[in-house]
Amino acid sequence: MSKLLIAHGGAPTAVINASLYGAVMEAKKSGKVDAVLGARHGSAGILAEDFIDLGALGPEALALLRVSPASAIGTSRTPLEGPDYEQMVRILQKHGIDRVLFNGGNGSMNTCARLSEACAGTGIAVGGIPKTIDNDLDGTDHAPGYGSAARFAARSMQEIAADVAAMPIHVCIVEYMGRNAGWITAASALAREKTGGAPHLVLLPETPFEEERFLARVKRVWDQGQGVIVAVSEGARYADGRLVAPPLFTAGRATYFSAVSQYLARLVIEKLGIKARSEMPGILGRSCAEMVSPVDREEAERMGALAARAVLSGQGGCMAGLRRVSNEPYRCEDVLMPLKRSALRERLMPEEMIDRDRYDVTDAFLRWCRPLIGGELPDLLQLSYGG
Amino acid sequence: MSKLLIAHGGAPTAVINASLYGAVMEAKKSGKVDAVLGARHGSAGILAEDFIDLGALGPEALALLRVSPASAIGTSRTPLEGPDYEQMVRILQKHGIDRVLFNGGNGSMNTCARLSEACAGTGIAVGGIPKTIDNDLDGTDHAPGYGSAARFAARSMQEIAADVAAMPIHVCIVEYMGRNAGWITAASALAREKTGGAPHLVLLPETPFEEERFLARVKRVWDQGQGVIVAVSEGARYADGRLVAPPLFTAGRATYFSAVSQYLARLVIEKLGIKARSEMPGILGRSCAEMVSPVDREEAERMGALAARAVLSGQGGCMAGLRRVSNEPYRCEDVLMPLKRSALRERLMPEEMIDRDRYDVTDAFLRWCRPLIGGELPDLLQLSYGG
Repeated sequence: MSKLLIAHGGAPTAVINASLYGAVMEAKKSGKVDAVLGARHGSAGILAEDFIDLGALGPEALALLRVSPASAIGTSRTPLEGPDYEQMVRILQKHGIDRVLFNGGNGSMNTCARLSEACAGTGIAVGGIPKTIDNDLDGTDHAPGYGSAARFAARSMQEIAADVAAMPIHVCIVEYMGRNAGWITAASALAREKTGGAPHLVLLPETPFEEERFLARVKRVWDQGQGVIVAVSEGARYADGRLVAPPLFTAGRATYFSAVSQYLARLVIEKLGIKARSEMPGILGRSCAEMVSPVDREEAERMGALAARAVLSGQGGCMAGLRRVSNEPYRCEDVLMPLKRSALRERLMPEEMIDRDRYDVTDAFLRWCRPLIGGELPDLLQLSYGG
Repeated sequence: MSKLLIAHGGAPTAVINASLYGAVMEAKKSGKVDAVLGARHGSAGILAEDFIDLGALGPEALALLRVSPASAIGTSRTPLEGPDYEQMVRILQKHGIDRVLFNGGNGSMNTCARLSEACAGTGIAVGGIPKTIDNDLDGTDHAPGYGSAARFAARSMQEIAADVAAMPIHVCIVEYMGRNAGWITAASALAREKTGGAPHLVLLPETPFEEERFLARVKRVWDQGQGVIVAVSEGARYADGRLVAPPLFTAGRATYFSAVSQYLARLVIEKLGIKARSEMPGILGRSCAEMVSPVDREEAERMGALAARAVLSGQGGCMAGLRRVSNEPYRCEDVLMPLKRSALRERLMPEEMIDRDRYDVTDAFLRWCRPLIGGELPDLLQLSYGG
């Protein structure tokens, strides 16, 4: 009989616990394990030998695990050194743990790949479950966590747009997460068919920001009299790579940047003389239980189960992933790929999904993204649109 | 037969449309009206004679109206002058409108009271429906719109706290609306029984901010090792009345302030050397359909119907309101009060609901607020709390 240990790395998502649920249920069902453990706060929890007995969770707790955002066992960003991997192997052996799963993004898949190598010849199988709201994980069509972040971006955009339409007296700049990749911000464009036009501009890190062109486009929409809504990625930048949001202050070795939405709002006020405000829904975008995508949740659970099946059969060194088969009807196949395929690679939005000239996304993006948010956005009655 | 006109004033709420629904349904049911109109974008719509035929809405649109946040007919902040009121009376007479309802806060109730006076002797009855997320409207136990803003504050706090608990590596400052009154921020404390302690501090405009004491309290919670979450009202201020968030820039006659949550996060970073970030859920707090309080929605609908019944029976000059009868079981009576009771008065949180020494609210506040959010917050599984 085996002992399975599961660890989470990096920022939480709305469905990382659904993957945990999928892995736990698969392990129980397999009849191959006599313990399923969670590392409290990720790799730090492994090094501290701080484990949570997930096998002891009753049916109610398991049902709640499946639908709870944020990592129920905790996660960490602790950077690991070479000796840490050897130490982890010793700890795993000490506790009789021979099956390990890491759930995370490209940093965690690197950790996972290195631990897998360190375990060579020990009989310990190490595998990966993909996760990231940013969708910058390479090798899989998309990662669990993204669909819910995308649904949140689209739905919050729709709700903010309805509010702005009720009193269209300003330019509203809505900021979404995504330091290098614009996938989340891009998803807010799915609101457009429900809002009569918002977001009017979509500013992505992949599209170089030009102040004059931005202001001209805002002015053009403003002159139509229905307010202006701009979606912007926190990582929006100039052609030379500088962030649009200027540095604010430094503390130690860290530089803190101002919020790009606030910077752009101020620009609109000062350069165009139009009222402007910024909105920053922030980490609700990855922690809001009410806006989880049911497709995302189901895929997260599936990826957890798939990765568990692989390591439980003794197959280490693989990450579970999704391969898109078709958009309509939406279908993705489960695939296993080498962990190294995703380690430390960052996937940006491809050319064909971005309309650089118009500060927008393309139909190709919308077709790709639409199925991931798990169903149409519910209508909101707004009789003042176009009035 | 009568013609009823309904206008919205000030910022939208999550349930202002539920009041509109209540008024429209009451008017239809009464058999006393042959038209129900909405003024597009509030008093500006009356002056522009821009009306929406609400009587023409079918059952599906009406059902959607009841559950849609943001004002479906639009609202405005247009300041009115003396001659505007006389002009409005002429327009009402021209269109044969003899029943008018304003839905809004203390500014709108002032508009409503002045229009009611201007209509003296004309046979036009003018009444008010209470509304404000800020809960600063005097004369009623609370105003529709607040319960949903309170539920959003409590639930978003719970969700953000679960995310922070998963990776407690910083101080998180969460900012809620409320320029002068702390009612919304205070409601975030209802999350506490689900979060194991967050929010750890609650900073209200009614409690003078003291930097040293704030930093000492943050440090004390930080040293317990579970992260720190602070709820702060956008209007937090020093004892001398200055906003904690310093002025950022001026444009025309307007002064723009920085966000208090960002200011406090920077303070924590620079003075305590602890990582800190700010969260600003913003207008999602009044536009999020998913977090509407069912109690708030029901009361909004009731207030709309009550105010409609009053004006349809020819009784002008009154605002509908709620009088608290008991907390457990929760019960409020419907009451009518003179419009002037609420016009331009701003109600802050009373002494007995604030714990100034501990930057917190009191049990008296929690008992008062709990029933308004419409049911317990659903659990989120978080096994890493206290680990």
